[in-house]
Amino acid sequence: MSLPELHTLGITEVAASVESGILIITLRSSRKMNSFTEKMGLDLTRVIQWGDANDQVRVLLLTADPKSPAFCAGADMEEVIKGSVLLGRKEDTEDEHRDPGGQVAMSIYNNRKITIVAVNGHASGSGFTSLQLPFDFRFIWAGAQITLPFLRLGILPESTSTYLLSRLVGQSRATSILLSNAKMQPSSPNLSILYHDILPNKEDVFPAALSFAKMISTNSAPVSVSYTKGLLHHPGQTIEENHLLDSRAMKRRGASKDGEEGLKAFMQRRSPNFPDTVSNETWYPWWKPRDVGHPKAKL
Amino acid sequence: MSLPELHTLGITEVAASVESGILIITLRSSRKMNSFTEKMGLDLTRVIQWGDANDQVRVLLLTADPKSPAFCAGADMEEVIKGSVLLGRKEDTEDEHRDPGGQVAMSIYNNRKITIVAVNGHASGSGFTSLQLPFDFRFIWAGAQITLPFLRLGILPESTSTYLLSRLVGQSRATSILLSNAKMQPSSPNLSILYHDILPNKEDVFPAALSFAKMISTNSAPVSVSYTKGLLHHPGQTIEENHLLDSRAMKRRGASKDGEEGLKAFMQRRSPNFPDTVSNETWYPWWKPRDVGHPKAKL
Amino acid sequence: MSLPELHTLGITEVAASVESGILIITLRSSRKMNSFTEKMGLDLTRVIQWGDANDQVRVLLLTADPKSPAFCAGADMEEVIKGSVLLGRKEDTEDEHRDPGGQVAMSIYNNRKITIVAVNGHASGSGFTSLQLPFDFRFIWAGAQITLPFLRLGILPESTSTYLLSRLVGQSRATSILLSNAKMQPSSPNLSILYHDILPNKEDVFPAALSFAKMISTNSAPVSVSYTKGLLHHPGQTIEENHLLDSRAMKRRGASKDGEEGLKAFMQRRSPNFPDTVSNETWYPWWKPRDVGHPKAKL
Repeated sequence: MSLPELHTLGITEVAASVESGILIITLRSSRKMNSFTEKMGLDLTRVIQWGDANDQVRVLLLTADPKSPAFCAGADMEEVIKGSVLLGRKEDTEDEHRDPGGQVAMSIYNNRKITIVAVNGHASGSGFTSLQLPFDFRFIWAGAQITLPFLRLGILPESTSTYLLSRLVGQSRATSILLSNAKMQPSSPNLSILYHDILPNKEDVFPAALSFAKMISTNSAPVSVSYTKGLLHHPGQTIEENHLLDSRAMKRRGASKDGEEGLKAFMQRRSPNFPDTVSNETWYPWWKPRDVGHPKAKL
Repeated sequence: MSLPELHTLGITEVAASVESGILIITLRSSRKMNSFTEKMGLDLTRVIQWGDANDQVRVLLLTADPKSPAFCAGADMEEVIKGSVLLGRKEDTEDEHRDPGGQVAMSIYNNRKITIVAVNGHASGSGFTSLQLPFDFRFIWAGAQITLPFLRLGILPESTSTYLLSRLVGQSRATSILLSNAKMQPSSPNLSILYHDILPNKEDVFPAALSFAKMISTNSAPVSVSYTKGLLHHPGQTIEENHLLDSRAMKRRGASKDGEEGLKAFMQRRSPNFPDTVSNETWYPWWKPRDVGHPKAKL
Repeated sequence: MSLPELHTLGITEVAASVESGILIITLRSSRKMNSFTEKMGLDLTRVIQWGDANDQVRVLLLTADPKSPAFCAGADMEEVIKGSVLLGRKEDTEDEHRDPGGQVAMSIYNNRKITIVAVNGHASGSGFTSLQLPFDFRFIWAGAQITLPFLRLGILPESTSTYLLSRLVGQSRATSILLSNAKMQPSSPNLSILYHDILPNKEDVFPAALSFAKMISTNSAPVSVSYTKGLLHHPGQTIEENHLLDSRAMKRRGASKDGEEGLKAFMQRRSPNFPDTVSNETWYPWWKPRDVGHPKAKL
């Protein structure tokens, strides 16, 4: 089974290209302010899962068209009013409904490659919850405004944000962020630790993230990255369980071709050239995977 | 079944009144330094649960009488010596004993309304563990001293603090706070992120918290708040489980009267006027509730 | 069953002595840069477990010989190349392999006494994961460089670091630290909250940690410390479960001889002199312990 070419995926609301192992995904919506539409959600999930499956891709990097006035303004309100699946306003049942922002969030969070977002403009609603929280690394413009209008709209923070935010920064900050209903700056004490770097100029966000992506992708074994992410997301219930897991992982990796090459490169003081590929890796998953596709998916 | 009036609850160690949707609870103990007595614990639990059940209440705001020399000095030692239930020094068994500070903490943490504390004085022991940690938002006076005398008394940090503190600020800070046995300032690196705001003047703490309470209560749908708190406290074990939960929540809220009103108000650029009430909400709980009342409550 | 004397443990790669209730363990490896060898791991586990069992020991304090050019340079690469159990490069199977750094980490994390590390030099690999993360308190020299070469070696962060780091500082910081493959300083925003104190001079790290160890050991009841650590590490799944646990703990401690002495000392404004001993304590564990020794240990 071979992968389709990137340009045959039928994506229209984002642009995508691969450059030295980095899949660059650019929000370039036909809607003003890059608002999140149903089609944008589908496009993102498709291209992100393509990046997960493609061994040429080592890093996924999401940003927005720098000409757009916003990084992403959240759910497209015109579409919402017309009855889109967004915000639960479509003719599906409570059991059938699957939040589109959460679908995108899971495709990012569960991705086995390194994921980076370069937030080069204002972000609202799902432009924060779905398009920032699930990434491994977040870069942002210091002037970006973060707005979460959920409680004011009579709905609630979605896109798995109640799960992710507590894990990422602790429940004290997560509660302040999600309940305070306020305009926030990246440098605020509650938000700042979410960001790997906060850049003073809007134009510097993407270059900084790209440069970091290049650095990180040339020196890290892709399969090692996927193991580390797997263990961070599914560390086991206790330190003993984690010890059993990382011991097995270490044994597999230490005895792998990558492990051999890593050690050689280290002794020879040169950059490593790792042969193992993520698509060939069969250890995953050690946790019980959950298929959320069925209307009767059990809670 | 109608609610009793606030003044018929028989509370004596705290004062309570409702003002524009905000239940203001003031520690005004007959004991010096507002020390935590058995009766204060009962009064607090009663009035806090009353606030949870009353749809007129959108925010609970706890503070201390500004004339008191302390916010709360912890367990009342005179009562402890006489054999109070406090600190486990009463004639009950290990199975029967229920820590009074923990009873208060659970009534705050499990409250479906927004909870805020304005710490306008020094705090010791349960004045920190029971009366600060379980709140959604903490405001404090910069000059307040936090003292945890548990290990020095041969007992241990109670009031569910070993659960709450790690979740709120991570285990590194939680361990430093609970084991270091030291006098702490709100601005110390380990404590500061617990506080939504740290005010230089003692007299400014309550007004700042009240102003925040008003802002937050007028713009947030109460049922949306209760859903968000429920998901933050019970997010599910995995991102997939959270996705199933917040998808259902979004569908319910998007299709609700609040959701309709929130969207209308947004389009008409006016403040929303939410009709749905927390007491009418039937979704809760999706987690397995635990009744701690029985001596044989299983662990 | 009496404890063996410290000097009969057969330890060679570390020095150890007890001084006013503090077990001081000093890395003094025969390998350059204090690199982590199989024998060093065994020595550390042995002496740390000895400290756990010995009632004279109230605090364990790890540091490195100040004359060593590094605190610990991570796995000894010469030994790795020759086929040590380190990094999974020995003739054991995936089921049998037990990461040596993780063995040390568990002996520290599960220790019932207060554990402190004084990092007085550079640290790499297991010099960070195994020898810093599992401690209750970390002191470090501001000039120390932290390097994590795992992904570059084609292996992965071990020593239960994927479990510990997320719990200690949240997943946002943990991901940045473990995936970024960069040289880090203790004062960097991602690392700083790991450290109880960051000292400008290398020579000041151990004295500061020792002084803290003395302060903390004289005023804290050892059994109270062990209960607090147990509850921080195994807080229960919900606030209700934690309430049942800390209520029982409080009842036991409040009714104990330590509780009596703590109260008396408090009323008499003197230092307490706690009679209860950790080795006599029988409440532990309330969680399901896991023996990781068997090759077929279930995950």
